[in-house]
Amino acid sequence: MELQVHPRIGVMGPSQCSARGSQLAREVGLLIARAGGILICGGGSGVMEAAAAGAKEAGGITVGILPGTSAFGTHPHIDIPIVTGMGNARNVINVLTSQAIVAIQGAYGTLSEIALALKCGTPVVALETWQVIPPEGGAEPEIIPARTPEEAVSSALAAIRNRQP
Amino acid sequence: MELQVHPRIGVMGPSQCSARGSQLAREVGLLIARAGGILICGGGSGVMEAAAAGAKEAGGITVGILPGTSAFGTHPHIDIPIVTGMGNARNVINVLTSQAIVAIQGAYGTLSEIALALKCGTPVVALETWQVIPPEGGAEPEIIPARTPEEAVSSALAAIRNRQP
Amino acid sequence: MELQVHPRIGVMGPSQCSARGSQLAREVGLLIARAGGILICGGGSGVMEAAAAGAKEAGGITVGILPGTSAFGTHPHIDIPIVTGMGNARNVINVLTSQAIVAIQGAYGTLSEIALALKCGTPVVALETWQVIPPEGGAEPEIIPARTPEEAVSSALAAIRNRQP
Amino acid sequence: MELQVHPRIGVMGPSQCSARGSQLAREVGLLIARAGGILICGGGSGVMEAAAAGAKEAGGITVGILPGTSAFGTHPHIDIPIVTGMGNARNVINVLTSQAIVAIQGAYGTLSEIALALKCGTPVVALETWQVIPPEGGAEPEIIPARTPEEAVSSALAAIRNRQP
Repeated sequence: MELQVHPRIGVMGPSQCSARGSQLAREVGLLIARAGGILICGGGSGVMEAAAAGAKEAGGITVGILPGTSAFGTHPHIDIPIVTGMGNARNVINVLTSQAIVAIQGAYGTLSEIALALKCGTPVVALETWQVIPPEGGAEPEIIPARTPEEAVSSALAAIRNRQP
Repeated sequence: MELQVHPRIGVMGPSQCSARGSQLAREVGLLIARAGGILICGGGSGVMEAAAAGAKEAGGITVGILPGTSAFGTHPHIDIPIVTGMGNARNVINVLTSQAIVAIQGAYGTLSEIALALKCGTPVVALETWQVIPPEGGAEPEIIPARTPEEAVSSALAAIRNRQP
Repeated sequence: MELQVHPRIGVMGPSQCSARGSQLAREVGLLIARAGGILICGGGSGVMEAAAAGAKEAGGITVGILPGTSAFGTHPHIDIPIVTGMGNARNVINVLTSQAIVAIQGAYGTLSEIALALKCGTPVVALETWQVIPPEGGAEPEIIPARTPEEAVSSALAAIRNRQP
Repeated sequence: MELQVHPRIGVMGPSQCSARGSQLAREVGLLIARAGGILICGGGSGVMEAAAAGAKEAGGITVGILPGTSAFGTHPHIDIPIVTGMGNARNVINVLTSQAIVAIQGAYGTLSEIALALKCGTPVVALETWQVIPPEGGAEPEIIPARTPEEAVSSALAAIRNRQP
């Protein structure tokens, strides 16, 4: 197993989400795993848990980058908990570790991950998430819109291929 | 001097800005210092430098929370450089250290600071900056709009008073 | 595969090491993998690379928690690169993510990881590494000495078992 | 006031200390302030509080780099609280922000700050604190011993002068 060659795709979304958000996340996670990708997420509930559950359904590997100081109590769909003890600063690690992210729905944490990914140069795929409008004179951010989980994952994979090395 | 009782107001904005952005930032910095506030910023150029210069013009105190591993080369309007060595993760420290932030214009870093401030519960005042539209069903973020530097600083001060202790 | 139930053992050591250090690290990595453990390290060269190579020899899984802002150029014995962009602050993540660490030889980074592990309550096994002497009146730190890679890994595993949950 | 030109000296020590530790820290803080220095510390109790109190006695300026997510409840000897929300990772910020540190007594956090300062190239002055013995073949760390607060502060100032680019 040479895991490093597998694409690392982040799924970013809120710890509380609608049934639809959960369904979208599960499908995105499943498709990432089927494509041979490693799922990166924040390790929490809601969108994060649904995406990890989807990835495990398809036999994938899941990484949860946790804000707290212990992995104790992390849900069982996370294979590899990374314990940061850094609260929201772990959002930066999420988007640096992911080679592309898919943002699904989302509260403020997700908005910060979209912004940090744009800042760090990590491609962002948007699935029913925040819209951001730059200040006057500012360039439109390069966010890749997706209408379905299939489109989201294939766009993320394409963005990773285009970025290499 | 009991500095801790002085309000800490962050000015968040891009390292490259228009003449207008620079002018707005300088005035915001000046008004923060006149109100007895401590200016918090990222310690860089552009909006950050203009705000710090404005605060120093009025005899204020300025803190620059730096992304790099050295304070060497920091512009002279920063009194107290905080050297984090953490890159964009220092944006979290900016918004936790500030008791309110004023966002002026902005690129992706500023957008991340708006999002992180909302996440952390730090009041956000918007002066010609990003607009953010939540996903369907999401609550409108509580961002305080301002049309002028005066309005921005008085709103920030009011938000701090309302938050205490 | 339920990776989360596998023990996560960190191997901490310098990026430049002697032939002996490299040999010790390789054996420790191999034994961690044979015991079904996940190897956590800083993702660099020297002791970190030798330990990861040893773990891969035995078919294990390796995680490298990187100080820089990109995984590009990481050596091939790291399966899962975690990109922190936080420089030495990633040492805290190393010791929080590991359920026990084995420190081998070491320069200042390794000394910081021993200290941070003690601070965070992560058991520390010492294999030909730093010795630390507390200030007068201070309690002796609970560092577990090991003479061989076998002893080091079995002590780390025992410490993890004793800690749970 | 051009604060940036004032030396920034960190005082690192435990949150619980003996009467002697407290006395040493108070004198070190006082001497830093008398020398025109800015005191950097972790913002907690024990050695940190005593050093800050000493600095304020002499009219100095004090910065507390806090591990938690709020400045609320910080003791009044801290002028400028920096709120990191990063737990022990703030120790890295302590030693990067300080141009030299004085370590007094100490528990594991202090040991980590000694190690991180050595790693980052920040000069370390030791006043009744940890001793560290490198692994066989390793170079002796360049720690500056001090017997008194006077010696500690004058050594820190000398180290800063010698470092300047």
